[in-house]
Amino acid sequence: MLPGIGVFGTGPVVKVLVPILRENGFKIEAIWSRTIQDAQETAKELAIPFFTNKIDDVLLQKDVDLIFVLCPPNWHAQISVKALGIGKHIVCDKPAGLSQTDALKMVKAGQYYPTLISLINHSFRFLPAFIHMKKALKDNYLGSPITLIDIRVQSGCLFSDSDTFDWKCDDTMGGGTLNLIGSHVVDLITYITGQKAVRVHGVVKTFTKNAENINGIRSISAPDFCCFQMELQNDILVTTTLNSHTAGTTFQQEVMICSSTGHLVVRGGDLFGRHNKGNEEVIYLDVEDLQYPVANSILPKTFTKGLCKMVSALREAFLPVNEKAGWIKEPVCSAANFEDGLYVQAVLSAIRQSSQTRQWVKVDVMTEQPDQNELLSAVVRRTAISIS
Amino acid sequence: MLPGIGVFGTGPVVKVLVPILRENGFKIEAIWSRTIQDAQETAKELAIPFFTNKIDDVLLQKDVDLIFVLCPPNWHAQISVKALGIGKHIVCDKPAGLSQTDALKMVKAGQYYPTLISLINHSFRFLPAFIHMKKALKDNYLGSPITLIDIRVQSGCLFSDSDTFDWKCDDTMGGGTLNLIGSHVVDLITYITGQKAVRVHGVVKTFTKNAENINGIRSISAPDFCCFQMELQNDILVTTTLNSHTAGTTFQQEVMICSSTGHLVVRGGDLFGRHNKGNEEVIYLDVEDLQYPVANSILPKTFTKGLCKMVSALREAFLPVNEKAGWIKEPVCSAANFEDGLYVQAVLSAIRQSSQTRQWVKVDVMTEQPDQNELLSAVVRRTAISIS
Repeated sequence: MLPGIGVFGTGPVVKVLVPILRENGFKIEAIWSRTIQDAQETAKELAIPFFTNKIDDVLLQKDVDLIFVLCPPNWHAQISVKALGIGKHIVCDKPAGLSQTDALKMVKAGQYYPTLISLINHSFRFLPAFIHMKKALKDNYLGSPITLIDIRVQSGCLFSDSDTFDWKCDDTMGGGTLNLIGSHVVDLITYITGQKAVRVHGVVKTFTKNAENINGIRSISAPDFCCFQMELQNDILVTTTLNSHTAGTTFQQEVMICSSTGHLVVRGGDLFGRHNKGNEEVIYLDVEDLQYPVANSILPKTFTKGLCKMVSALREAFLPVNEKAGWIKEPVCSAANFEDGLYVQAVLSAIRQSSQTRQWVKVDVMTEQPDQNELLSAVVRRTAISIS
Repeated sequence: MLPGIGVFGTGPVVKVLVPILRENGFKIEAIWSRTIQDAQETAKELAIPFFTNKIDDVLLQKDVDLIFVLCPPNWHAQISVKALGIGKHIVCDKPAGLSQTDALKMVKAGQYYPTLISLINHSFRFLPAFIHMKKALKDNYLGSPITLIDIRVQSGCLFSDSDTFDWKCDDTMGGGTLNLIGSHVVDLITYITGQKAVRVHGVVKTFTKNAENINGIRSISAPDFCCFQMELQNDILVTTTLNSHTAGTTFQQEVMICSSTGHLVVRGGDLFGRHNKGNEEVIYLDVEDLQYPVANSILPKTFTKGLCKMVSALREAFLPVNEKAGWIKEPVCSAANFEDGLYVQAVLSAIRQSSQTRQWVKVDVMTEQPDQNELLSAVVRRTAISIS
């Protein structure tokens, strides 16, 4: 039995997700936005029966059992924690909230309600090319240990010229290429290799500070470029270049995993490999085409395809259980959970710190909420030092 | 009147260069290698009338007026300085010698004999795609200042499986991807933008330490991977990934220059661009094909094409002047000179230091040879500290 869906947010990903959900038999019951006008417009466009700007109005709906949190990151923790408390399943957009503090709140709530699904929308985990890549590694396709992972993502500007100033332009609100694309990369590496980052070095930059509708006193602070290196537990080096600064280019991604005797590389949605001194061979070609209206989205095809597969996994998790909102674990067991989301926040935060201090930074995953009094006295101490 | 040529070295670049020189009307008079057997074999293969393992035997030949120094880097400074002293023109392979100390010796000699040609073999400066890129920048194609330069070079292993241990496997002897490919990248950026690096950060790695014929007590120390960032004088960020670790892949290069309103990108030997919110357009397509035997070389096509154009520029410099070894400056005025070679060594050395210290490192171009006594006492001091 499929659960009814409540959606938070009205951005491009919502407009892609809703048709995919319907294709998989899910019913969309309610939509929320911060402004009632925005909620109403999107509800009309997507033919959703109920719209609101009050969080509880969605969470308390009897027919809503699965919540998609796709609104700006500053709302993620509040909505997710509340929804779990009310007994609703959650899929939250990446990265989980604005910071480790947000992510840790979500982790604690998720641990408190282990019978509820609590996932992060890292749809790359469901892209067939990456699933085949993970399998090839497990089957020792490379023949020797991984040495190097080289990742490159090139995309046009992350918001369109017609956009006005919103969270996507603002670094502190969770916008920018490090949060929106880097989070996928960091999660993907752990998904594929089973390894986590020990130390990182990064350069995070905002090259373009103005757009057609964003100028004057408001300027863009969200980074449009970052490159970072990560050292994984097993001495694997990861190097990543994310460029959202070259406007007008189409989305391109390449993820290459090397050993001394071979390599595996995902280009777009296809997987290639080379081992035992042979030539590069095709391992998986993604020939499946996306259907209208999903194909017309500004979202990269690989994200959308991953999302399709993730929704279909959710269907597999709910459908076989007759009990309302009951589910089985297996179909969604490889999805990113809130703990994965916390780890990703820890890495992103270390990369930002590295870019500021020009040092390599150790990745420290938060396990306890920082004491507010301690935080305050640290600020006071720092102020005292800078005055004296 | 074209000068007679003396060649030092017997590697792949020599086997490409000699036919190119002959096609341009140059006569190869003599060849040198460290072992007489090697010199004899190559002389026979390339039909060069005179071979030797004595440096002076080439330099003192009356018919030799232009020297190509293409032997291992530890010989560069000695041969170049001596050749200039005897009054011969020089083209020396990149990077200039093993270190800034070597390069500075060459600079001083070049300054002492300004009537002689003294160039570094940075053949990318002669590749049409990069010449068109430089021109497009000058014509303000981008519409706003350069913000970011993103460079990626992927090549197979820099030596073949049949090779035995030689300088190319050895870091301290000048082998590895940072020296052999990185030097071109560092020089190219200055050629195209007119800007120099102020500060660098790099990770330099030797992932593959053994090959079929290189194992046991001898192992490869020359890096097969490096990524580095450079901050240029005008706040331009350069990020570079050089991967010679993925054996079996074909040589690929991409050099992308971005501004907030457009970009220019060289892929292989072709130039593309985008400006004023238009689509990416072709600016220059390299359709010229290389002739046998040059086309069959293991050298990347773009290197070889640049070399062809450089030799043809040398022909233009010498041919119009009737006087023996006389020349005009204009055709070779954009080539890299020994000062450029010294700057490149300074950057490479800063990148290596950054990789060791895990810090950003300021680029310091050497202007005076370090005092040997000072060096010695520094070593003594350091030893004393580590003992105490």
